[in-house]
Amino acid sequence: MTLILSNEEIDALLDMGELIDVLEDAYRELAEGRGGTRLRSDIITPTTLREDGLYALKSMDGVIPKLGVGAVRINSDILTFPQTGTGMRRVKVPAAPGNRYVGLVLLFSSHNGEPLAIMPDGVMQRARVGATNALAAKYLGREDADTLAVLGSGWQAGAQVTAHAAVRDLSEIRVFSPNKANRERFAREMSGIVGLEVRPCDDGETACRGAGMVACATNSYPPVFFRDWIEPGMHIGTVRPGATEVERAARDRIDVFSLLDHDDNAKLIYTHGVQVGEDKVGSYAVEHDAWHASLPSLPQIVTGQREGRTGDRQVTCFLNNLGLGYQFAAVGYLVHKRAREAGIGNDLPTDWFTETVHP
Amino acid sequence: MTLILSNEEIDALLDMGELIDVLEDAYRELAEGRGGTRLRSDIITPTTLREDGLYALKSMDGVIPKLGVGAVRINSDILTFPQTGTGMRRVKVPAAPGNRYVGLVLLFSSHNGEPLAIMPDGVMQRARVGATNALAAKYLGREDADTLAVLGSGWQAGAQVTAHAAVRDLSEIRVFSPNKANRERFAREMSGIVGLEVRPCDDGETACRGAGMVACATNSYPPVFFRDWIEPGMHIGTVRPGATEVERAARDRIDVFSLLDHDDNAKLIYTHGVQVGEDKVGSYAVEHDAWHASLPSLPQIVTGQREGRTGDRQVTCFLNNLGLGYQFAAVGYLVHKRAREAGIGNDLPTDWFTETVHP
Repeated sequence: MTLILSNEEIDALLDMGELIDVLEDAYRELAEGRGGTRLRSDIITPTTLREDGLYALKSMDGVIPKLGVGAVRINSDILTFPQTGTGMRRVKVPAAPGNRYVGLVLLFSSHNGEPLAIMPDGVMQRARVGATNALAAKYLGREDADTLAVLGSGWQAGAQVTAHAAVRDLSEIRVFSPNKANRERFAREMSGIVGLEVRPCDDGETACRGAGMVACATNSYPPVFFRDWIEPGMHIGTVRPGATEVERAARDRIDVFSLLDHDDNAKLIYTHGVQVGEDKVGSYAVEHDAWHASLPSLPQIVTGQREGRTGDRQVTCFLNNLGLGYQFAAVGYLVHKRAREAGIGNDLPTDWFTETVHP
Repeated sequence: MTLILSNEEIDALLDMGELIDVLEDAYRELAEGRGGTRLRSDIITPTTLREDGLYALKSMDGVIPKLGVGAVRINSDILTFPQTGTGMRRVKVPAAPGNRYVGLVLLFSSHNGEPLAIMPDGVMQRARVGATNALAAKYLGREDADTLAVLGSGWQAGAQVTAHAAVRDLSEIRVFSPNKANRERFAREMSGIVGLEVRPCDDGETACRGAGMVACATNSYPPVFFRDWIEPGMHIGTVRPGATEVERAARDRIDVFSLLDHDDNAKLIYTHGVQVGEDKVGSYAVEHDAWHASLPSLPQIVTGQREGRTGDRQVTCFLNNLGLGYQFAAVGYLVHKRAREAGIGNDLPTDWFTETVHP
């Protein structure tokens, strides 16, 4: 049977600590050449839905033989690029019937090829970003870091809190986002979830002062973390490709950078009718430059192939750049395993997704 | 609703003449930059199923804004490479429950992103190969070609017959394959389908003598068509990447080569434990060389951007090399449209494959 799961079911099944362990193992497999990843591709075209919109078909694949799974993650998005008070944002429009988004993870068995599960990607996407940043903080942050500052109070920010709480013994969590009501609601909610006081701050600098770990978790193009806020020993994590969340001028005060993976396989395909420019491309920008190529990847740091932090006063920064289909194989493996154990989800006949005809 | 179709339903819905027209239009869109394609990638790893096997997760994507669709085609295969009497073959093992293969086409709307259909790839795969070779024969073959020789009597060979019959007014069809019973059965069956005598021949040379069009449709690594069989004006089509079906020495007697697409985006990713060698790689070989890069693609010939046949005595050859996810968008569009009109297939709630969570 092929398992169909909902975001709600996946959310209930996923344990952040467990996920971080699985991802750590999966990254080790990748760095040591036993895991395979095909970086993201985007085909970007006009859409008939609206003139200021674009259609984007995105996919990324990965196989983890040790876990016995492969995954393909697919996004079929309508995109718009509105100007807001704080600059341009890339906005996905939920245009599918019922005002819904379209993101899928298909999980396959590398043992016999069968389709194990078809799942929405939303909760898994958030969890793998949070877990990966926490893993970076685990390897790059100071051992004694006990204060986390979160910049942002949206969907991604919540996973940053639970994930960092799983890798360090936190005594204090602070949050800043421009909207007072949002950051207060976020602080209340997250406090209930992690069982620690989460303090809303009136500005980002206050939130970051003395924090051993800073987690940027916004969808803002302009920077949200600035050079002057840097303190010795700090670790800074980002979630946006291009690391636009950290002021560019801050780079010379950061001793150790790391990124998720080098992006030299990623592929952007534009058709006519798509205006390709710095602004429009936005988060699609692929970082092929020599600087990015020189940075250690997180999997390389996890295995010890490359060095991370080497001193307590060093400042470290993790760029969670383009995501990997490989991550969805790891998250999918865990979700599928826990769902089977708990008897959760809907089964569809595997015959619907297999065939007798030689393809 | 998201449509689930079976190979049997797809087979009943697909009309070869109609498909050739849709593909012709789609190739024009591609050559003129209005269609987008992401070439095939394969992640190849060991499998726990058997020591002499490999696991391969293959994907390819395409979007055709004019038709309002995008598609992702996925194969999750167990591969073996047995030696047979006529050399090594790459054999997919139907290892999924019920001894089935795993090949899927997911069709999306480029208007609103929604998942329109989930379909097995087998019948569509065969149809797009046959239709593409016939389209190549339409553009590269002589206008007055009325005799078709088919080399092979398997699954792919049948589509070659119906497809070529849709682009030329055939008076004679011949078939050769090494097994007498197979070629005689094939001749009987195809004769009933196209309403023309199909003559089984005792050797390939006899089948090809005087034929204006030769369709190679085998899964053999050693060549099945030879230099000495070439006659002025002949058109030869192949279905195997690498064009291994045509004896290499024949190349100097062929005036015009064309291929489906240039393969410079295709991506092969091997993990440790995979023996990568000429033999093992087999049909995975990606043709990046200068000669391939210099050839006109079929889409370029369809639009007139590049020249095809320029004289009646020229010998032409079409290399149907690595397939495109883009083709599955075209076939999927047609199948989905006809299925909706006929009320065929099973509907699943689109909500199962969409989400309210921002991915």
